[in-house]
Amino acid sequence: MDKTGKIFVVGIGPGNIEHMTFEARNAIEKSDVIVGYKTYVDLIEDIIRDKEVASTGMKKEKERCEEALKYAEEGNTVSLISSGDAGVYGMAGIILEIVFKSKSSVEVEVVPGITAANAAAASLGAPIMHDYVTISLSDLLTDWSLIEKRLHCAGEGDFVVCLYNPKSKGRQKEIEKAREILLKYKKNDTLVGIVRNAKRKGESCVITTLEDMLKYDIDMFTTIIVGNSHTYMAKGKMITPRGYAL
Amino acid sequence: MDKTGKIFVVGIGPGNIEHMTFEARNAIEKSDVIVGYKTYVDLIEDIIRDKEVASTGMKKEKERCEEALKYAEEGNTVSLISSGDAGVYGMAGIILEIVFKSKSSVEVEVVPGITAANAAAASLGAPIMHDYVTISLSDLLTDWSLIEKRLHCAGEGDFVVCLYNPKSKGRQKEIEKAREILLKYKKNDTLVGIVRNAKRKGESCVITTLEDMLKYDIDMFTTIIVGNSHTYMAKGKMITPRGYAL
Repeated sequence: MDKTGKIFVVGIGPGNIEHMTFEARNAIEKSDVIVGYKTYVDLIEDIIRDKEVASTGMKKEKERCEEALKYAEEGNTVSLISSGDAGVYGMAGIILEIVFKSKSSVEVEVVPGITAANAAAASLGAPIMHDYVTISLSDLLTDWSLIEKRLHCAGEGDFVVCLYNPKSKGRQKEIEKAREILLKYKKNDTLVGIVRNAKRKGESCVITTLEDMLKYDIDMFTTIIVGNSHTYMAKGKMITPRGYAL
Repeated sequence: MDKTGKIFVVGIGPGNIEHMTFEARNAIEKSDVIVGYKTYVDLIEDIIRDKEVASTGMKKEKERCEEALKYAEEGNTVSLISSGDAGVYGMAGIILEIVFKSKSSVEVEVVPGITAANAAAASLGAPIMHDYVTISLSDLLTDWSLIEKRLHCAGEGDFVVCLYNPKSKGRQKEIEKAREILLKYKKNDTLVGIVRNAKRKGESCVITTLEDMLKYDIDMFTTIIVGNSHTYMAKGKMITPRGYAL
């Protein structure tokens, strides 16, 4: 083909089609080929019926990018799918890196989406109304010592703390260690929101405390938001005040 | 009216209608009344033609919430509009607080949106692919000493740093002070993305360094993203690697 291909890196949001943006849907509809992790591609099956779909298993990020690039080099418009926001622990960085290293002239456009912290926050109430940090507890690609250091800094600064990838089959102890570090700076009764499948089918939502948080189920579909020293609960909602005089 | 009212707190995203979610649009379409800051309500004028609109000027957050609550108490479905994500320095917290303090039984539902950090990141490339903090430099509601402390912690932890509200007519020096603090931890040549009107009409995007950043226009419509020690630039994009072996 003579046509120059293009890659949209599309954040589809938390999962329910309703929380996708119009721009994300437009990018998908404009695309000839959809590339993504099967679980995420399945979430949008209703809008990709007529498309060529190349879906792969977990932890195949590099292969997925190479596949997307191959299709784009052939002149196709490709949507590379991430859940949440492709720019937050998603596919945006790796596809840009791979395209640049390959010296390809294929254009890459990142289409932002609702990331898990914002989706979980909406379900909990308003826990990230003030300064917050986002930390992934996965040490597959990051030294655990750096993750620990960041947890200390987050605690020291009285930030609201959003924890991604808190636990998986192979990583069980990280969330316990993270809690211990945060407890050096935050009180036992600091509120903690635990959201599983945020804004996705089967959502569950618990508001508890740093002391009690490990009594609840936590897995790789869970996002955890630990409040700051002013976070409180009212009528079942978790609220971090911005500071208005009311 | 007998009907019980409801308030949707709707994050409309960065501004262009395309970056709004379907859920946000649904909430607005279901609403009898739209309440919001005039500048943001104007961004969505195409979809609110037949609605009652109560828009107010800046810094009238409390009045806007009271207005929304009044309409909801009368049995209306109300959309209270925030730009970006209502749950990030937006209207979600204050409306929940005001409804709870009033002892009203009106239901409040937060509809998440794309916040400025994610919108700006998408335009820059992939700068927030790794752990990041979000800090507002506005000291209207927060002690400057706490903001400084958080900047120190963010620097110490080698986080990517997203700065909201970097400058306004009345606050000119905060961004200079923030830069000085970050320079205690980050090198002069650390990459800085400056995005004005991210994913909105008239967007401009600059990638520079901590050393040079003050040479560029920064105002209240600007979001600034300061990289971590691994952030680099390739083909005009700002990339913070996640750590994949490529």
